[in-house]
Amino acid sequence: MEHLTDEAAMDLAVAAALEGVRGANPLVGAVLTAPDGQLLAVGRHRGAGTLHAEADALAAWAALRETDPQAAAVDPAACTLHVTLEPCDHTGRTGPCTGAVRAAGIGRLVYAVADPTGTSGGGAQTLRAAGLDVSGPTGHAGSLALTDRWRRARAAGRPFVTAHLAQSLDGCAAAADGTSQWITSPASRAHAHAVRGRVDAIVVGTGTVLADDPRLTARDDDGSLASVQPVPVVMGHRRIPAGAALRGHPALAAGEEPLHVRSHDPAEVLAAIAAHPGPWPHGRGGCEHLLIEGGPTVLAAWIAADLVDELHVYTAPTFLGAGLPAVSGLAVDTLAHAVRWTPDSAEGGPVRPLGPDTWTHLRPATAAGKE
Amino acid sequence: MEHLTDEAAMDLAVAAALEGVRGANPLVGAVLTAPDGQLLAVGRHRGAGTLHAEADALAAWAALRETDPQAAAVDPAACTLHVTLEPCDHTGRTGPCTGAVRAAGIGRLVYAVADPTGTSGGGAQTLRAAGLDVSGPTGHAGSLALTDRWRRARAAGRPFVTAHLAQSLDGCAAAADGTSQWITSPASRAHAHAVRGRVDAIVVGTGTVLADDPRLTARDDDGSLASVQPVPVVMGHRRIPAGAALRGHPALAAGEEPLHVRSHDPAEVLAAIAAHPGPWPHGRGGCEHLLIEGGPTVLAAWIAADLVDELHVYTAPTFLGAGLPAVSGLAVDTLAHAVRWTPDSAEGGPVRPLGPDTWTHLRPATAAGKE
Repeated sequence: MEHLTDEAAMDLAVAAALEGVRGANPLVGAVLTAPDGQLLAVGRHRGAGTLHAEADALAAWAALRETDPQAAAVDPAACTLHVTLEPCDHTGRTGPCTGAVRAAGIGRLVYAVADPTGTSGGGAQTLRAAGLDVSGPTGHAGSLALTDRWRRARAAGRPFVTAHLAQSLDGCAAAADGTSQWITSPASRAHAHAVRGRVDAIVVGTGTVLADDPRLTARDDDGSLASVQPVPVVMGHRRIPAGAALRGHPALAAGEEPLHVRSHDPAEVLAAIAAHPGPWPHGRGGCEHLLIEGGPTVLAAWIAADLVDELHVYTAPTFLGAGLPAVSGLAVDTLAHAVRWTPDSAEGGPVRPLGPDTWTHLRPATAAGKE
Repeated sequence: MEHLTDEAAMDLAVAAALEGVRGANPLVGAVLTAPDGQLLAVGRHRGAGTLHAEADALAAWAALRETDPQAAAVDPAACTLHVTLEPCDHTGRTGPCTGAVRAAGIGRLVYAVADPTGTSGGGAQTLRAAGLDVSGPTGHAGSLALTDRWRRARAAGRPFVTAHLAQSLDGCAAAADGTSQWITSPASRAHAHAVRGRVDAIVVGTGTVLADDPRLTARDDDGSLASVQPVPVVMGHRRIPAGAALRGHPALAAGEEPLHVRSHDPAEVLAAIAAHPGPWPHGRGGCEHLLIEGGPTVLAAWIAADLVDELHVYTAPTFLGAGLPAVSGLAVDTLAHAVRWTPDSAEGGPVRPLGPDTWTHLRPATAAGKE
């Protein structure tokens, strides 16, 4: 039997949250404890459209009470719910967490970080008004780190941005003669397609359209189209050829032109995406999660602008010698000016094999310092 | 209770072998089974100077017999020992495995791969002559793959060669201005020092001596000198400066000049190392395990000559933009000519985090095809 301090309960909530997936929805974890700190339930958010962490923990506790008389005897009013992010006060695809907490009769809430959004914020205030003993925001470091980049994107009114890098061991996206299909393995490509399937839009440069003619669709392992498709976005000054594969993208209506932003500036691309009417996948009202797929100068532009919130690196066990770099144009002259990242523990840890390749999951190292 | 076919027993022996460490000694695994295929014991070689796999399995079985009456009742003459490599017939730092097998009274031996060495080969013949039922070499694929590069090095009469690569995410060993200390983390450097501590010699180019002034010592985690030190070797045409740190290397006698091979040709370096009188660490009579540490053109030369048997890649989560490549001069013009590697499952798997860095363990993809 575990007896947790408030701090230890929040640490456990962070660990639970990290099993989730990064993106438009923040990673959130929740832990329910009895008055003596005994652990009653752990919950986490598992991705868009699923139960929020608070509701997940309360559902786990309700299930336990049905089979465990000792759990059933615990008075909810004497229990504390620990949440890494302020409970939402908003009905989206799931009901408001404030309602779930009140319905469960929980007496005390500790939350680590205030919800910065206008739509779902205010939950702490609502619960205080309802008579709960509410502590927060406590500023718990692990909880702050969990959502630092997400909160930054929210505060800037822009989507959460994931970038994708597929390269050889020596950092090349293509051989010297431009050949690049396929450097990485089917396992890496399947992972990349799963990521495409959970974003709202994908950005590539005109150079990538001309060199690789990508379809920019999310496909299942058998090659068939996934049920939800990201909106394709092209940035750069060159024209999209008449026969480009992405012109047949399923997110485009018949005769609709792909969104083409004639600029190398990520800020202009974000503005054009914000102005785009959609429709957007995942039932969202706008683009909340953006994937940058390349090529090299496009990736460098988004990285240099500090607009990449997470980075997926797929590295094939191959040397391409004097090939074409996967990232090109970063202004780094000395080691002290290196663009640094930090391992991202979400989604099963920061590194794992994907077939013969290595998958590395990173976040900007400077995120916390720039809050 | 597991009942194994000969094939399944050998697969299990391979899995056990992969827990060991690559180098001058081959990875070997052994499995002892009863007449009905019941698993009695698993053994593996854990590194230079420790029990060979056969002796390890027999020791595990002897220990089991002391506590388990059912195991004690099994007749050794009815048992089969499955070994991935022919048992040695040679007394080195441990006794000959043929002797251990005979002393245990084992009735049947299955081995997968013949021992190619003059000193320790002939074990199967010895055991047949002693009356054992011996099957082999069976050519079991997993066992062949386990030692393919080791056998190649043995057949060529050269040391097993490990190469070391420390680089940024974009494949740079230094920034544009040459700054490079430290790109990788203390955890990566500690791992690299542990590798230095198990090789017989380290090769660097004169460029690395001039740029980094490395000590080329193996150091423990606290920075103190390890008890066994590799012999430093320098290749290239430039002079080793009078004040170079490696001149104070503990493997050099007072006043002794470091071994300096004035050549860019790995074959000439191997010849010079073979002619070097030593003394060699690890109680060996020569250099049986060589580490290539760089720099970029030295690594490329050994890779291009297909003389690298395993590759350790330490990748820091950092972009260095227009930095200096970690490998330089590989003649690859198109993807079909890429230098390909394959994940090496020995030593705890092909990929793992080391602090913020990623460690990748690779072997040449073409090894088996070139046997």
